Amino acid sequence: MKKEHKELMKARRRNIGLVVAYDGGNYHGFQRQTPPVTAVQNVLERKLSVIFGDEIEMAAAGRTDAGVHAYGQVVNFFTDGTIPVERIVRAANSILPDDIVVKEAFEADEDFSARHSVKSKIYVYRILQGDTPDPFWRNYAWYIRRPLAIEKMQEAMQFLLGEHDFSSFQAAGGTSPSPVRTLYEAACEKKSGGIIEFRFWGNGFLYHMVRNIVGTIADVGLGKISPQEFQQIILAKNRRRASATAPAQGLFFAKVLY
Amino acid sequence: MKKEHKELMKARRRNIGLVVAYDGGNYHGFQRQTPPVTAVQNVLERKLSVIFGDEIEMAAAGRTDAGVHAYGQVVNFFTDGTIPVERIVRAANSILPDDIVVKEAFEADEDFSARHSVKSKIYVYRILQGDTPDPFWRNYAWYIRRPLAIEKMQEAMQFLLGEHDFSSFQAAGGTSPSPVRTLYEAACEKKSGGIIEFRFWGNGFLYHMVRNIVGTIADVGLGKISPQEFQQIILAKNRRRASATAPAQGLFFAKVLY
Repeated sequence: MKKEHKELMKARRRNIGLVVAYDGGNYHGFQRQTPPVTAVQNVLERKLSVIFGDEIEMAAAGRTDAGVHAYGQVVNFFTDGTIPVERIVRAANSILPDDIVVKEAFEADEDFSARHSVKSKIYVYRILQGDTPDPFWRNYAWYIRRPLAIEKMQEAMQFLLGEHDFSSFQAAGGTSPSPVRTLYEAACEKKSGGIIEFRFWGNGFLYHMVRNIVGTIADVGLGKISPQEFQQIILAKNRRRASATAPAQGLFFAKVLY
Repeated sequence: MKKEHKELMKARRRNIGLVVAYDGGNYHGFQRQTPPVTAVQNVLERKLSVIFGDEIEMAAAGRTDAGVHAYGQVVNFFTDGTIPVERIVRAANSILPDDIVVKEAFEADEDFSARHSVKSKIYVYRILQGDTPDPFWRNYAWYIRRPLAIEKMQEAMQFLLGEHDFSSFQAAGGTSPSPVRTLYEAACEKKSGGIIEFRFWGNGFLYHMVRNIVGTIADVGLGKISPQEFQQIILAKNRRRASATAPAQGLFFAKVLY
């Protein structure tokens, strides 16, 4: 039955891909929820149905939790709608709420799946460190008053590179059959205004993996965990060894590579 | 009676000054309103009263309208509260909502008034120009899709420098006896990510003056008004000659100089 539905969708003539940015602050995450709970996907599907003239069901590159943001979420859906591809961006943005923005639209091959064709993803996480918080970062960074030792954090993050069993950073509730992932990049640097920006590029991410890593790396920055102890935490493959999950609002789903 | 009250306030032992940043998005401007309408001042006075142990009535360097933000609003108030000055910032931020932040606190002379001692003020205004809006700038910039000619805007803004009668940019409802003000700086420049940043430094500003100037300068950038016509608009001293008021959310009260 589910497969039949999928075939029915694929029988539609076009496969449209979108790159979407959103402020996750007002939504219960990306993935479709039962009303009255509203997720980003609910809004996108409802509004795009108006533009395309048929009911839209989309696949997405990744889920994001409540409060998590996206610069470059990618979705795709099958449609018989006839709007030219170059008009989709403006049409969509004219009816979407201003916290969800379609940045690009493209015509994809029948086989393209925003979810299954993913090769790698990039996440960005920001900490604001300083004597006082900043009202303009309150929904976009994790505020930490005490100074963080950047070099120690950078040293610890080296241990994340390459293929590892990341069980120590996987939240309960994850559905992935394997906890093994490969990170190509795991870095942090000081930006202006007290912002510390973390960047993670990998072939996949476990549930809460970035936030659990950042929560533990922050403890390295605060001197509670040494870089060597951080390496031991990875090797332990035990969630209870790592620190608390960093808050959602600092996390941005930045880019998907296909 | 009013004067008596003022003398009573001045009889208190300390004159405390604060530098305050706030996101104006959730407030009906800075100036105290009658509940249930809430302004930034209502929140500050109520929360600071808890810290200082007496009723706080503050003066402020400037009013800001609903939706307008501040990096560096300055306020002062008289109090008999005994909290050491170096503890005020943390104490205040621990009980203020996270869209209002005390950045600095200082002990001032009896004669210091955040309002009357002002020598000059700096405002910043941001426009976001690009093919698509940005969900993260929606409350902090004015989005304009069509390209803006920066050089034309810069050329026009030269005419704002110095002492002028700024009646053409004064909104009805302003209470100032004279429309003459001096601008020391009036400039705009391109920043990264499609942001165009305007900066105004002057000895004073009429009601809606910055937003009316930016609204008119944007029409210069769009080619609707030439730089020479902009100069004529200044000289006309007639609000009807200028363009519509730029939206509140792009405006930041940046700094006060004493």
